[in-house]
Amino acid sequence: MTFFDRLRALVTERDSRLCVGLDPDPERIPGGIDGAVDLCTDVVRATADLVCCFKPNSAFWEQYGPDGWRGLLAVREAIGPDIPVILDAKRADVGHTMDAYARTVFDVLGMDAVTVHAYHGADSLDRFTRYADRGVYVVCHTSNPGRTDLQHLSAPDEPLYLRVAALAERVNEHGNVGLVVGATAPDEATTLRAVSSLPFLMPGVGRQGGDVAAAVLAAATDDPASCVISVSGAVLYEPDPRAAAQRWLDEIRACEPVTR
Amino acid sequence: MTFFDRLRALVTERDSRLCVGLDPDPERIPGGIDGAVDLCTDVVRATADLVCCFKPNSAFWEQYGPDGWRGLLAVREAIGPDIPVILDAKRADVGHTMDAYARTVFDVLGMDAVTVHAYHGADSLDRFTRYADRGVYVVCHTSNPGRTDLQHLSAPDEPLYLRVAALAERVNEHGNVGLVVGATAPDEATTLRAVSSLPFLMPGVGRQGGDVAAAVLAAATDDPASCVISVSGAVLYEPDPRAAAQRWLDEIRACEPVTR
Repeated sequence: MTFFDRLRALVTERDSRLCVGLDPDPERIPGGIDGAVDLCTDVVRATADLVCCFKPNSAFWEQYGPDGWRGLLAVREAIGPDIPVILDAKRADVGHTMDAYARTVFDVLGMDAVTVHAYHGADSLDRFTRYADRGVYVVCHTSNPGRTDLQHLSAPDEPLYLRVAALAERVNEHGNVGLVVGATAPDEATTLRAVSSLPFLMPGVGRQGGDVAAAVLAAATDDPASCVISVSGAVLYEPDPRAAAQRWLDEIRACEPVTR
Repeated sequence: MTFFDRLRALVTERDSRLCVGLDPDPERIPGGIDGAVDLCTDVVRATADLVCCFKPNSAFWEQYGPDGWRGLLAVREAIGPDIPVILDAKRADVGHTMDAYARTVFDVLGMDAVTVHAYHGADSLDRFTRYADRGVYVVCHTSNPGRTDLQHLSAPDEPLYLRVAALAERVNEHGNVGLVVGATAPDEATTLRAVSSLPFLMPGVGRQGGDVAAAVLAAATDDPASCVISVSGAVLYEPDPRAAAQRWLDEIRACEPVTR
């Protein structure tokens, strides 16, 4: 069963487009890597029946050094095989180096999906997409202010992020490619949805201030995988992470029901 | 002393633009991570007086899992403080996530410089460039065939990679920014050199077939840091790595002397 089919099944069964991000911050979590693993494992247990997937971001684990990678593996294991895990790693390099990154993410870390950058082009992305049962989200339009510096350049007849989306379609030979589309820019998400039916992974709500309703309305189609909303800090660091996840889920459900 | 000043001093003192890449491949090196550390440490010892810097690529270490990061730290330590080390990690994410990557690369791993992608824009790059004593190479024009897919798009009046170079100039507030420019495309390197005086890090000779002479002639100026040629597998996996490094160095020296 492919990543997107597993994702579709869970989104539909649970009526949940909610992804919880697992991004430990050593300045907010006491106890070093053990504290990070404990907190993230607690949050996984508390929210496991509310989400369609989890998304650890590699940066937050790497800052703990080698122990961080052990912690990431421990959290991957704690999630178990039934809920897909997206490693938000945004990797990008030349082909033979991407082979090593793909082995790391899919074989060593046992992740179900990953985020990647497209700057190196199709021959680089192919090293990830050839894992047909895993998902590959291409970073397309990001949630930070600096997104306009390059992503909005005309290239030459349309913005670069639309060219990235077209490249992602081109490498979608196995039906396992999606797009990362920031939830902070619903207009661009609408523009993207008009030209692409790929599944969107949408970070940027919570601390980055994205509007959940606008993002869901822009992205959701009758494909249950069309729109996954990712929330990290605004669940992880809440006094009651389950209650916080439930509030986000309620807000997402109020926008647009999952239909298929 | 900043990264680029240290690099300039070594390039001049040794008359060497040679960087040796440390990219262990578990299929070619027996003994798992210990074998990788032993081989790379041997190569570091054998070539330490011939190079201006070393460049481990994170992908090749990550594929060993948490032990890979311990191995990378061990190799960083074996190199010592006198020769700069560039971590070829090609990281890119939104600002607060880039903070975590920057902490990882500079504080946890103790690297002197890094490679990053510009797709997220200036506010993302700033999280690395604010480390004024470290170097930041922005991936600009890559050595793989797929580079044309996005990097050669008109955006709108000039190719995207030239816009990336302009963005790199813009974030070069502390004089610590360079460009990654593949050695497989000397014409584009020449075009870049005509508009940018930033230091170039040039991978792609060796297994990727780049022409050393063409790359050096395109990139080298009277700034000793202007052109660093990186060779990985074609040193690491040679029966006599020192002799191989010496041959590359001779070839580089024959192109264009270091003048400043």
